[in-house]
Amino acid sequence: MPTFDSISTLIEYLRFPSVSTQPEHTTDVVACATWLEALFKKMGLSTAIHQTPGHPIVIAKTIPDPKKRTVLIYGHYDVQPSDPLPEWTSPPFEPRINEEEGKIYARGSSDNKAPTLAHILGVAQALEEKGTLPVNVIFLIEGEEEIGSPHLAAFLEKHREELKPDVILVSDTGMAPGNLPAMTYALRGVAALEFIVRGPSHDLHSGLFGGAIANPLTVAARLIASLHDEKGHILIPGFYDEVQPLQPWEREAAKALEEAAGGDESIKDLAGVKELFGEAGFSTLERIGARPTVEVNGFGGGYQGEGTKTILPKEAFVKLSFRLVANQDPQKILELASNYLRQQLPPGVSIEILLGHSGEACFSDPQSDDGKAAQEALQETFGSQPFLLRDGASIPIIASFKKILGVDTLLIGLANPDCGMHSPNENMLLKNFLDGIKLNQVLLEKLR
Amino acid sequence: MPTFDSISTLIEYLRFPSVSTQPEHTTDVVACATWLEALFKKMGLSTAIHQTPGHPIVIAKTIPDPKKRTVLIYGHYDVQPSDPLPEWTSPPFEPRINEEEGKIYARGSSDNKAPTLAHILGVAQALEEKGTLPVNVIFLIEGEEEIGSPHLAAFLEKHREELKPDVILVSDTGMAPGNLPAMTYALRGVAALEFIVRGPSHDLHSGLFGGAIANPLTVAARLIASLHDEKGHILIPGFYDEVQPLQPWEREAAKALEEAAGGDESIKDLAGVKELFGEAGFSTLERIGARPTVEVNGFGGGYQGEGTKTILPKEAFVKLSFRLVANQDPQKILELASNYLRQQLPPGVSIEILLGHSGEACFSDPQSDDGKAAQEALQETFGSQPFLLRDGASIPIIASFKKILGVDTLLIGLANPDCGMHSPNENMLLKNFLDGIKLNQVLLEKLR
Repeated sequence: MPTFDSISTLIEYLRFPSVSTQPEHTTDVVACATWLEALFKKMGLSTAIHQTPGHPIVIAKTIPDPKKRTVLIYGHYDVQPSDPLPEWTSPPFEPRINEEEGKIYARGSSDNKAPTLAHILGVAQALEEKGTLPVNVIFLIEGEEEIGSPHLAAFLEKHREELKPDVILVSDTGMAPGNLPAMTYALRGVAALEFIVRGPSHDLHSGLFGGAIANPLTVAARLIASLHDEKGHILIPGFYDEVQPLQPWEREAAKALEEAAGGDESIKDLAGVKELFGEAGFSTLERIGARPTVEVNGFGGGYQGEGTKTILPKEAFVKLSFRLVANQDPQKILELASNYLRQQLPPGVSIEILLGHSGEACFSDPQSDDGKAAQEALQETFGSQPFLLRDGASIPIIASFKKILGVDTLLIGLANPDCGMHSPNENMLLKNFLDGIKLNQVLLEKLR
Repeated sequence: MPTFDSISTLIEYLRFPSVSTQPEHTTDVVACATWLEALFKKMGLSTAIHQTPGHPIVIAKTIPDPKKRTVLIYGHYDVQPSDPLPEWTSPPFEPRINEEEGKIYARGSSDNKAPTLAHILGVAQALEEKGTLPVNVIFLIEGEEEIGSPHLAAFLEKHREELKPDVILVSDTGMAPGNLPAMTYALRGVAALEFIVRGPSHDLHSGLFGGAIANPLTVAARLIASLHDEKGHILIPGFYDEVQPLQPWEREAAKALEEAAGGDESIKDLAGVKELFGEAGFSTLERIGARPTVEVNGFGGGYQGEGTKTILPKEAFVKLSFRLVANQDPQKILELASNYLRQQLPPGVSIEILLGHSGEACFSDPQSDDGKAAQEALQETFGSQPFLLRDGASIPIIASFKKILGVDTLLIGLANPDCGMHSPNENMLLKNFLDGIKLNQVLLEKLR
């Protein structure tokens, strides 16, 4: 019987409400980091919690052998907020196993606690069975991924020498549609922006003033409407200037995956929509993986209660985020967008623009030596040739890894496509979690 | 010393949080009606509380003399919700007098408790001093004006014979800009509509799905943007078809008032904006009084908390209300708008449209006999010729009075223009309240 029972260790990990964006969860975040530190200690690794101006970073290392290559395994222990709470069928931080589905339900299960833990437990098992590993391993588990990793780059800069790996391994993406094994060779970047439109100094009676005053809600809505044409193409001047065009082999890879995975129907099922909608000229997987977007994440203003209140409200807020692709520069995109928004204001309103977190897209060659090693490990573990994916999500730190540590990252997703990441009822297929523990052991052998 | 001290009676009346749209205030609404009933009884009037499927209606009558004309005085004891609460400088239902400004602050002070009470106390004083009135008076004070008087028309139908007056008197409008005496000869109608745009079955990760799914917030914003052109003209096909054009004498009256009242500057001050914005081709007073509008009163959807949450949300709601002018039909306008909204949906979203309250605009000749009597009473009370106003607000029941009781309504506003009706820090100039008590006595003499 191994020291670490995989499922019960996972359940312990999932109980922490380590929501990084909500100040009321700060102590939970710290408790979660402390729990990780204790786990690493129990495995015999040298470990440390590093404070940052935000949430702590947990580092753990095997005893370094200068003759071996070094693999840095990155993950994050923070999670998204759990609202809207009423839509969860069980409490988000009380993990629930549905045996029929073979799934565990909890906020953070797929993003990113189970995948991270699979690598940790893979190392724990190998150490327990063989006493040694084919490579040196450094774990770097941070607590601010869901808020854009604001302090990780500075940490990497500071600890560049002691962290320097030969290759980086990250399991924070998904399996391919149909829960098929996949290697991700590109991720979208991200750039967030909130704007507040302010008009009158107080909410006004819409009868006594309506018709003579610009309504901040109407203005905010018109600004949003100005972002896209009717077919979903973005209208911000210069927005697409730096976009690297899709190569023929990429369109082939996307097509092969769409055919294997049931095409648009499976995406519709996952999203719970009857029809898809997106930019003309691209397939659904291309729209998600290889095309930049801007989405409204939140909008609020005016009367929010039941019934009617006939006001012309004083202000409105809009939370926007862009998903970017290689080679768009997030800072430049935020600047183009800000200018475009500012230019369109009617008289009598002002706009305040708050720039949020951002991170570059990444793109790396799946046919490098380490890329091939990863593809082989996936084939051995899952029994089929992995698909090559462009993932629509963002892990901004991947670009920083390349820039600061100078090495490529292997992105090997373990989350099932219907995992509900960032949504109510987030879940993880237990088979993927357990396979991930095996995959870690096969892969470390191949990367030797 | 009179039985009723005007100011302390007003303060008692303002303490009731008689918010008609919020179910949690139902008992407060009933308590307020009961208080009114007791006041009328103390004045020696025959009085009754009439239940409706909603909030009760209070009726009070002087002893009828068949030789006298009958004046029906209408008002409402319900008030708007008090949110946003943090913007009040004192609690909305704890009336506060600012002696320097000569104002009383409370929700409902100007809309419509002080103006209604001025008429009640005018009658009380006359009865106390002379024992009789020059006309028969019927008070009809309802509790559902702020939610569109859904049960008043049926009540009028049922009690048509016992209520039948020669003329109706309503003080639920405002003084002219500059707090100048005014008679209102037109009111805007109103029609409310809420729509909900629904997309995916749950909130989605904007990275994993963004680009392939119509975002309900974006769709809702585009629907709002489709309502107006850049200059504020409404684009719903057929919207302006029935609008009665402004007459030359009306444009003269509006111009005279603008000149007397400090023009656009005073409107800017009241609204707290640096610039006005509205439909091309019309002056500010015309835009407010004589042109129809559509305003967004509330908009919500997606992440409302602090920080960022990168979701593609499942739904969005929008609360709209139209202000209409003679001779637009509210039902037809709601139908035109609903069709226009439905026609514009992209694939993958649905829309639910909830029709809210509505009421017709009204327009009556200020040079009728009773109209002239009202102008004379205003001149005697305030010492200057009253202005003739088109008010932008709505009192939907006025059109029902004409239709059901067959008589015109005199609209004599007492609220100061900076009263903050429907806004935080609603207030009433005490001088206007006290002058209103006098005005009631002069006017009832003229209407004899």
